[in-house]
Amino acid sequence: MNKANTKVHATIIIIGNEILSGRTQDVNVSFLSKWLNDLGVRVSEVRIIEDNEEDIVRCINEVKNKFKYVFTTGGIGPTHDDITSKSIAKAFNLKYGFHKEAYVILEKYYKSGEFNEGRQKMAKMPEGASLIYNPSSGAPGFVVENVFCLPGVPSILKSMVDDLKNKIIGGKKILSETISIQTVESEISKSLEEVQKEFKNVEIGSYPFFRLGKIGVSIVIRSDEKKQIDVCSKKIINFLKKEKIRIIER
Amino acid sequence: MNKANTKVHATIIIIGNEILSGRTQDVNVSFLSKWLNDLGVRVSEVRIIEDNEEDIVRCINEVKNKFKYVFTTGGIGPTHDDITSKSIAKAFNLKYGFHKEAYVILEKYYKSGEFNEGRQKMAKMPEGASLIYNPSSGAPGFVVENVFCLPGVPSILKSMVDDLKNKIIGGKKILSETISIQTVESEISKSLEEVQKEFKNVEIGSYPFFRLGKIGVSIVIRSDEKKQIDVCSKKIINFLKKEKIRIIER
Repeated sequence: MNKANTKVHATIIIIGNEILSGRTQDVNVSFLSKWLNDLGVRVSEVRIIEDNEEDIVRCINEVKNKFKYVFTTGGIGPTHDDITSKSIAKAFNLKYGFHKEAYVILEKYYKSGEFNEGRQKMAKMPEGASLIYNPSSGAPGFVVENVFCLPGVPSILKSMVDDLKNKIIGGKKILSETISIQTVESEISKSLEEVQKEFKNVEIGSYPFFRLGKIGVSIVIRSDEKKQIDVCSKKIINFLKKEKIRIIER
Repeated sequence: MNKANTKVHATIIIIGNEILSGRTQDVNVSFLSKWLNDLGVRVSEVRIIEDNEEDIVRCINEVKNKFKYVFTTGGIGPTHDDITSKSIAKAFNLKYGFHKEAYVILEKYYKSGEFNEGRQKMAKMPEGASLIYNPSSGAPGFVVENVFCLPGVPSILKSMVDDLKNKIIGGKKILSETISIQTVESEISKSLEEVQKEFKNVEIGSYPFFRLGKIGVSIVIRSDEKKQIDVCSKKIINFLKKEKIRIIER
């Protein structure tokens, strides 16, 4: 498959043993990918790694120069296994300590006498980090250079991304069209490959599905040029008609 | 968090633009992780990468010597965007061509005259690969050295893993105990950290949850030694009682 001609790439780093052990099903990749796509940013790699300082530092150092934007989720809470902030500081060779503004936010958020050690820990960040505000539960995320650190709890993460929109400069939005048909993949593979060869700047994906007991294939056409999608889509519709393959939905 | 004392590590490589774009929610990581854990294999990293030959080759070369087992999912179907087999051949510097047994299996699976070019492609593999049989839809997966290539469709993947059990030699199974309590993480972070410091060979994870409108925390204790879990769990129960925190479930 050809890479669509889009220049802004991002990676998501999911930090959390609970995802790797299978205990918790990640849903942040799907949410962030769609949200970033709307901003013209393409997620081209995801890694899920352990709550382990060495692993986090190595991973951040591997990806921070490779992608324009790096998003991490998880590990910024109050417990001992929340080590993302400290690890990011280490990866960037920055001091790790109280962030004044984060401290004030959290101090105000909790009632007098309830701003305990665990809660104070959430105000510790790499020196010079800028904050990502949290309208759900107080504790902010933060940004160091091109690395955006978000929490792992999906509802809190979702409530925080609005604050990021003006910090991300995307490219052209990747558009897509889906044609769902009643057949199996191997019946269309040859014709579809010919169309893909003709359209180098369009990505054609083919995904089998099982819906209401019926087998089908969704053909997904992606590009940042609407015109290219339209022409490519017409070519596909033409061969489907010629080969008498029923279109369920488009 | 300390790494549990388990020696067999694996990685899962999810190959597929549909997962990265957010169009499809991956569920294979969670299934494979739990299945591998039962065999005494710990998944310590996951990557999700694009259907792109260069990316797949680079990724496989990065991970194949780092982990005892590598599992890939996706990209072994009949269409042009299914390039896993070809890319694995390239990563191992092997010829890519028809696998005799796979060809015979697929030829028998399809009715006479229906074994078309797309279907034949599914019999193409790296030279010398051994097969992973597919009781659902004919097309086999394959193994090259320590790399196990499975399909992306979850129901088909699930039907194939039984064939792998005797090919994987795990370590001690990682056991776990969960204590769910009615509090927020920051109320227990200090006491929990103290317990973690005392038990170096036990991993203690803390995960907030929202269930039926109620806020709580699940404390997960993991180790390959049942006795360690029991002693550690007792310590946690003790401080919970002392701090008058309600245990919802264990």
